[in-house]
Amino acid sequence: MTEDAFFARLFGRLPKPSDAWVVPPGDDCAALAHGSELLLLAVDQIVGGKHYYLTGPRKTPPEAAGRKLLARNLSDIAAMGGVPTACLLAGAFGPERDTEWLERFYDGIIALASEYDVTMVGGDLASTPSDDVASLTILGRVEADRVCRRSGALPGDGLLATGTFGSSLETGHHLSFSPRCREGRWLALHGFPNAMMDVSDGLLLDASRICQASGASLRLDPDAVPRRTRETTVEQALGDGEDYELLIAVGAEKVEALLAQWPFADVSLTPVGQFVAAATPQILDATGQPMAVRGYDHLS
Amino acid sequence: MTEDAFFARLFGRLPKPSDAWVVPPGDDCAALAHGSELLLLAVDQIVGGKHYYLTGPRKTPPEAAGRKLLARNLSDIAAMGGVPTACLLAGAFGPERDTEWLERFYDGIIALASEYDVTMVGGDLASTPSDDVASLTILGRVEADRVCRRSGALPGDGLLATGTFGSSLETGHHLSFSPRCREGRWLALHGFPNAMMDVSDGLLLDASRICQASGASLRLDPDAVPRRTRETTVEQALGDGEDYELLIAVGAEKVEALLAQWPFADVSLTPVGQFVAAATPQILDATGQPMAVRGYDHLS
Repeated sequence: MTEDAFFARLFGRLPKPSDAWVVPPGDDCAALAHGSELLLLAVDQIVGGKHYYLTGPRKTPPEAAGRKLLARNLSDIAAMGGVPTACLLAGAFGPERDTEWLERFYDGIIALASEYDVTMVGGDLASTPSDDVASLTILGRVEADRVCRRSGALPGDGLLATGTFGSSLETGHHLSFSPRCREGRWLALHGFPNAMMDVSDGLLLDASRICQASGASLRLDPDAVPRRTRETTVEQALGDGEDYELLIAVGAEKVEALLAQWPFADVSLTPVGQFVAAATPQILDATGQPMAVRGYDHLS
Repeated sequence: MTEDAFFARLFGRLPKPSDAWVVPPGDDCAALAHGSELLLLAVDQIVGGKHYYLTGPRKTPPEAAGRKLLARNLSDIAAMGGVPTACLLAGAFGPERDTEWLERFYDGIIALASEYDVTMVGGDLASTPSDDVASLTILGRVEADRVCRRSGALPGDGLLATGTFGSSLETGHHLSFSPRCREGRWLALHGFPNAMMDVSDGLLLDASRICQASGASLRLDPDAVPRRTRETTVEQALGDGEDYELLIAVGAEKVEALLAQWPFADVSLTPVGQFVAAATPQILDATGQPMAVRGYDHLS
């Protein structure tokens, strides 16, 4: 079973969210009606030895591990077109973690939280006999008429991607990346996205989630996907994961205007495909052949 | 450093919560203004081998572990006088956990969530090379004029406790307890608490947190604290933790009325002390001598 299927089944067995949950689970964030705005909520976690290195030549400084935990969550707010506001943190840390390590881990969170003006409203700290696990619940806000979801892509829409893809672990991008809050917010306020999501599990897998949610297929141009380094292969760009870039479905008639107006000289915006009508959503390559979707799935 | 001191320092270094955060971090829940109500938020976690048993004769069924994770969080909503509404779940599970184990863990959450009408609006699942850690962020609601905090106890107030204390691990209470949502809600709606909190780290330690937040000392009657079993000692009742009962500070003039009106025949409500004015908040025993505060602290 995939993580998506697992959670779909789990959510299905729980009491249904009330109508106040304008965006139910299954998107990058859930959204609760909150006056004229929506309150965005998501949770993500990092595991020592898995999302950062505990030993070896690339041993991760604790600040970078803490930073990554918050940055991953900021990326989910960015994908909804929102502004992050607050977080809650639960950390369970192994026996080798002394107060200094913990302080440095939190220093990494604090520095990024200060940059994005995110406060912390709850925390829990535990020890574990083994490796660290830390989770963070992020809150954000977005105007109800500006929220971006995975489900709005229409046949004919162009798919655009911010930044570059692949080789995230090798290059350290998975620790140093800038979550695309500024870009996601600008896109939402200018009304460009029909659908938007962030890429954390690999472009192919996450693009397939837009397809599923929107009920459309995507004709992808793999060669058009910007690669992070000269050594990065197309395969890596499509499947590596931990890119934390945005995928944006934009009406065909708006793509040119978007590219012309894009104000962020330091972040590329690249057309990488087009949505097409389909009875069974899937990803097609440039020749129209279905592509095998690979990427990082948490249960398989 | 204690966990309280650690988080106080951490919160102090982060961007300050806006005025919309009616209850800032440091209480059982933080509370965000949400129309005429408050949105309550808290996070708590369980660690395999620590909050439940992985092996041995008392090996915890996965359902009971999952149930405990949610129940601990419901107890925090109860302490604010609120109604739980939704949750987000992050779980990192060890290599021995197959899909069946995970399903049973979630079954325990689902059963309790259904009982309390709590939906789930977000989740993340990861694997860990070692033991399980799962965290849950709980959401709830409470009327702005009904919220109960730790900080309202006044000199002269009586301190009352629901239920019994001590021997939680030995008796299995830490797995089977009923979070006091019904009782906390009734108390809040009837306007009895000047302050309220739940006891998870031991009665003495948690009572001392009410004292600190309220700026008052507590004259405790240790012998009056109801003990969970006939074998439970006074020391255990005061320090064991994992009781998930409520401590309630009530104006002296209301204590009799409260005891007379208390409608829950299956849950005892017992006066266990009285708050007194003090320059330095502390806990005094029946003879007026300061008591050493012991209990479960997560950093020491």
